[in-house]
Amino acid sequence: MFDETFGAPAAVAATGDAAWVRAMLDVEAALARACAARVMIPEAAADAIATACATDLVDPADLARAAVASATPVIPLVEAIRAAVPEHAEHVHVGATSQDIVDTAMMLVTHRTRPIIEKDLRGCVDRLGDLVRQHRDSAQLGRTLLQPAEPITFAGTAGGWLDAIGYARAGLSRPRPVVQLGGAVGNTAAFGVRGRQIGIQMAKLLGIHYTEPWQTDRARVAELGAALGVVAGTLGKVALDVVLLAQAEIGEVSEASADGGRSSAMPHKRNPARAVLTIAAAHRAPALVATLFAGMPQELQRAAGRWQAEWPTLTELLRVTAGAAHHARAMLDNLQVHPDRMAANLAAART
Amino acid sequence: MFDETFGAPAAVAATGDAAWVRAMLDVEAALARACAARVMIPEAAADAIATACATDLVDPADLARAAVASATPVIPLVEAIRAAVPEHAEHVHVGATSQDIVDTAMMLVTHRTRPIIEKDLRGCVDRLGDLVRQHRDSAQLGRTLLQPAEPITFAGTAGGWLDAIGYARAGLSRPRPVVQLGGAVGNTAAFGVRGRQIGIQMAKLLGIHYTEPWQTDRARVAELGAALGVVAGTLGKVALDVVLLAQAEIGEVSEASADGGRSSAMPHKRNPARAVLTIAAAHRAPALVATLFAGMPQELQRAAGRWQAEWPTLTELLRVTAGAAHHARAMLDNLQVHPDRMAANLAAART
Amino acid sequence: MFDETFGAPAAVAATGDAAWVRAMLDVEAALARACAARVMIPEAAADAIATACATDLVDPADLARAAVASATPVIPLVEAIRAAVPEHAEHVHVGATSQDIVDTAMMLVTHRTRPIIEKDLRGCVDRLGDLVRQHRDSAQLGRTLLQPAEPITFAGTAGGWLDAIGYARAGLSRPRPVVQLGGAVGNTAAFGVRGRQIGIQMAKLLGIHYTEPWQTDRARVAELGAALGVVAGTLGKVALDVVLLAQAEIGEVSEASADGGRSSAMPHKRNPARAVLTIAAAHRAPALVATLFAGMPQELQRAAGRWQAEWPTLTELLRVTAGAAHHARAMLDNLQVHPDRMAANLAAART
Amino acid sequence: MFDETFGAPAAVAATGDAAWVRAMLDVEAALARACAARVMIPEAAADAIATACATDLVDPADLARAAVASATPVIPLVEAIRAAVPEHAEHVHVGATSQDIVDTAMMLVTHRTRPIIEKDLRGCVDRLGDLVRQHRDSAQLGRTLLQPAEPITFAGTAGGWLDAIGYARAGLSRPRPVVQLGGAVGNTAAFGVRGRQIGIQMAKLLGIHYTEPWQTDRARVAELGAALGVVAGTLGKVALDVVLLAQAEIGEVSEASADGGRSSAMPHKRNPARAVLTIAAAHRAPALVATLFAGMPQELQRAAGRWQAEWPTLTELLRVTAGAAHHARAMLDNLQVHPDRMAANLAAART
Repeated sequence: MFDETFGAPAAVAATGDAAWVRAMLDVEAALARACAARVMIPEAAADAIATACATDLVDPADLARAAVASATPVIPLVEAIRAAVPEHAEHVHVGATSQDIVDTAMMLVTHRTRPIIEKDLRGCVDRLGDLVRQHRDSAQLGRTLLQPAEPITFAGTAGGWLDAIGYARAGLSRPRPVVQLGGAVGNTAAFGVRGRQIGIQMAKLLGIHYTEPWQTDRARVAELGAALGVVAGTLGKVALDVVLLAQAEIGEVSEASADGGRSSAMPHKRNPARAVLTIAAAHRAPALVATLFAGMPQELQRAAGRWQAEWPTLTELLRVTAGAAHHARAMLDNLQVHPDRMAANLAAART
Repeated sequence: MFDETFGAPAAVAATGDAAWVRAMLDVEAALARACAARVMIPEAAADAIATACATDLVDPADLARAAVASATPVIPLVEAIRAAVPEHAEHVHVGATSQDIVDTAMMLVTHRTRPIIEKDLRGCVDRLGDLVRQHRDSAQLGRTLLQPAEPITFAGTAGGWLDAIGYARAGLSRPRPVVQLGGAVGNTAAFGVRGRQIGIQMAKLLGIHYTEPWQTDRARVAELGAALGVVAGTLGKVALDVVLLAQAEIGEVSEASADGGRSSAMPHKRNPARAVLTIAAAHRAPALVATLFAGMPQELQRAAGRWQAEWPTLTELLRVTAGAAHHARAMLDNLQVHPDRMAANLAAART
Repeated sequence: MFDETFGAPAAVAATGDAAWVRAMLDVEAALARACAARVMIPEAAADAIATACATDLVDPADLARAAVASATPVIPLVEAIRAAVPEHAEHVHVGATSQDIVDTAMMLVTHRTRPIIEKDLRGCVDRLGDLVRQHRDSAQLGRTLLQPAEPITFAGTAGGWLDAIGYARAGLSRPRPVVQLGGAVGNTAAFGVRGRQIGIQMAKLLGIHYTEPWQTDRARVAELGAALGVVAGTLGKVALDVVLLAQAEIGEVSEASADGGRSSAMPHKRNPARAVLTIAAAHRAPALVATLFAGMPQELQRAAGRWQAEWPTLTELLRVTAGAAHHARAMLDNLQVHPDRMAANLAAART
Repeated sequence: MFDETFGAPAAVAATGDAAWVRAMLDVEAALARACAARVMIPEAAADAIATACATDLVDPADLARAAVASATPVIPLVEAIRAAVPEHAEHVHVGATSQDIVDTAMMLVTHRTRPIIEKDLRGCVDRLGDLVRQHRDSAQLGRTLLQPAEPITFAGTAGGWLDAIGYARAGLSRPRPVVQLGGAVGNTAAFGVRGRQIGIQMAKLLGIHYTEPWQTDRARVAELGAALGVVAGTLGKVALDVVLLAQAEIGEVSEASADGGRSSAMPHKRNPARAVLTIAAAHRAPALVATLFAGMPQELQRAAGRWQAEWPTLTELLRVTAGAAHHARAMLDNLQVHPDRMAANLAAART
């Protein structure tokens, strides 16, 4: 039940069961079309396969359960597609292997979730830009090791948050979503000389990029995880600052909202609820990043466990990062700034 | 969609949305009954509250969404209970705070999921006991650093797995599920002198144990995480051994199943699917354990983020551990042992 | 250079190069004596071996470098012992394997470092006992999510820290240091029927416990790591509370020391230096714990990498935990408590 | 003692005590020179300071111990420099804060260690290029989930390793080492309008880059950690493949060396020692990466613990990555390839 509390609704949907199945069906359709374009399969077969893949062929939970027998959802997925186009069954999934479908689908799911995160980050940046402009003259006490240091301005504080979020956002846009097309052992042998062209065509159809088969070289997955982790960590820092500045004894900012931040024991209390949710979501990211890095040593031509562990881990990492961005944006949108308290705290520290 | 692939069905249910809401409602009911027993609220109020809490008062997803505003599901939960018993509203959640309800519910969810894991572990142990008895005379090559070493027996190998799983299972039974009852700031002030007695009564009603309020001392949560991590790591070792011994060139064991282990690219292939799923599930545990340990430094009387991050993390850790146990059991139940190949490999290494 | 800053001097020594070599030599000596007691080798050989092992036979850095060729320090160690007692060379390391020596040495190093940590924890507990007694009447504002909550007392705060440290300390004393004696493939075959008796004798000589060979069942190592992680996390919580309460705007505690807490940019500043060092040390523990858990799936009869990774990881984890305890004790010994500020903050929150 | 076993000698030195102190002294010297260039301090003072900083002014261990009192080595370092140039004492460390010195030194240490790692990676790539050329016709069995799959060539296997290492190496060269110059609260206030110019000049003198003060925006540190983690993970994959292919029953590669890979219990054995050391080093990286990511939420203008924890963590991560590269290179240089066994295994799998 925590996806709804800690997550971003749009990102929960974009990384959910239906989204993963949609991505896998889109990959199978793109494979069929690309194979037809290179005359590996008939156009009619590609049309039929793509048409079938455009529907909700399978129930995600059924598919997931059927995935147990072979430790891959692609076997039952391909069976379902074949059952839908019995006369073209031999042309379904031609030349490809499970890893091609799942890896490319993983890239697609990421590619489709990223704009949701980026939109919330842009919302944060926009709001912070306003705060910077509004608080050029709001003097504030700088604090190092949580002790009074030299004076700063709140424009400087908000500008620091803005720069950090902008930097993390640029980093998130860097890893390119790429097709995986290697076939059984990653060398595209089943496609003969056409492997590369088919991969390029698939990428074009899916709106992502092409690269040589990367199979058990998981650097791209780790880099994607790291970019998400940087976003989460950056938002965690901003939210932690908000929690600290919102302490009653400091009182330099607060989260204002109609109904937010209540306590079940103390009805008068107003908690920085969105900051707390941002911190909670961000707290979960580093270990998920570590799981992806720890999964890099994948055996020979396909891993026996570490690859499969990537699917739920990257899903979760996309969700906690999107959740952090979602809540951070609400936190900043609701942020009330109290220059009077800043002035008072600064004066108190200067005496 | 990966819960259905990597998880154990019973554990997915026992840690799911409805299970968490059920646990929280059970805690509120136990609180009401315990307060009535100590004359803090009328018996009639306790009856009404407990009756309301026995129903599915709230939709878990709605509750989770409503939890955002205050960063806790307990506010909307208490509102729902109060709405169900308007004449006793003032007696709902009396003296307690969000953390009391969620921490105790977290213990209950764990307490209810643990037997599912233990049952699968017992299944593993039983099967391994059979293998030990059957293979007293199955000489096998010991392998260190994956190189041939001295002879062993497969009874010894299986016995080592059995001992390790037995040890991990004993460790899992050790952390005692305990009530949390501290009130707003963890000192049971709202209960006066009756705080301890009410806590003890709640524990009795819930079938768990009592201990003094532990609020921001998260050692118990970390220990629980560690016990789960030891189970997952142990099962990961057994499954890795199975994968290694099942290599075609070694061929000393194999996973037999009617339809399992197929490949989408190579229909003739038989993969050790359950071993792979066990490894994949177990691979995710260490980082989740780390998230719980990293969450231990919780601020003053209630944490602003690290506590909240425990809920989904422990849920996930229960699931991956249960999933590892579930698949390990199927792996062992399906395990075929090939003493002839053991003998041949041993002979080859001896020459 | 950071061992001296973040560590505890005694623990740095107890886990250092010389300490590890000492432990390995002690294990070889105990093995020889235990074998002699069971007439596996002559008494004279055991005497000579034990005498040689009582000296600083080898330079630790040389040994560590020589360990590269075979990925184990035991090969060059055994060579050095044999060179020291040429006439008894055949009786050195009899029946044992590298893992026996390193695992038992790892247990010994832990066993010898633990009292250092426990002493600092006891120092913390003693100091906190004094604070509890002194501050029964020091009313303080409870803070949840870093927002004002209900009143507490500083005795309650300090008592909570005391209980948490006491609990973690009890947990640290729980994992029993045990001998590993399995021989080449972990089944004590080289010792015949005497394996168990020799292991028991070794344990007695080394002042630790005996258990059956655990070889690639690394639950004990993970549990040890978890117990250390709980100590570090608990101390991290106490230090974080100190940093928060020491904020100038709150000012309820401060770290007093003749020369401590200065800033290179702001000479007038007094930073909570020991609290910061405690947090920094504790921050490193969770990931080290995760490395040990992630290392549990060890291949067949000896792992190709994950076992070897335990040595520096457990060493580091002992050091950061000891460092956290060392600095936490100094932090608490230097802690000044300001009940007047507590009263003022409480009054301000109540209005 | 494990630095000498698992590490690369050059990298252990480049990240050691003396190297860190050297880097900090170089930063103080560059600061003085840059300030003189902008007439903030007299040229004569800069000359004297730079001359003093060119010597080994302080004993690293003494400095590290003195760092405890203020939780920073910069206080005693600045004192030592001032004592060396008493007549210019007021011009030492002018405008700067501890974080400027340590962060820039951390970048310098990284900048100086990186070429050591890159050289070993280039060595790996060169060797793999040779193997690719030599084994164009060495047919090999592809293995997925450690089960026989379709045929590949060893040129393809080695080429996959080459590409992965090349990719990781490119990623390692990406994060730019940058100066940190922000002063007490990160806004360069003490430098007036000259802050930026002084920072740029420092960067030029130190041979690194300039960027705006990043103070508590730790994305750059996390990205650096991630790049190192990708290198370690990639090498871990290659070494794991070597261990798997070196299994006696597969025997397609082996580590050849005059004296390497011996066992203390079984003198006839030849272990893949360098592969094991590579795996062991690489296994430690993911959690260190996680520690850096978990440290990103740093409080306000300087963190109370998480920043300080970066120093030993990044040091350790540089070391394990360099160690992995060092041992992987030796592993590959010593690698013997057995095309006859490849052919035999392939034939066996085809029947």
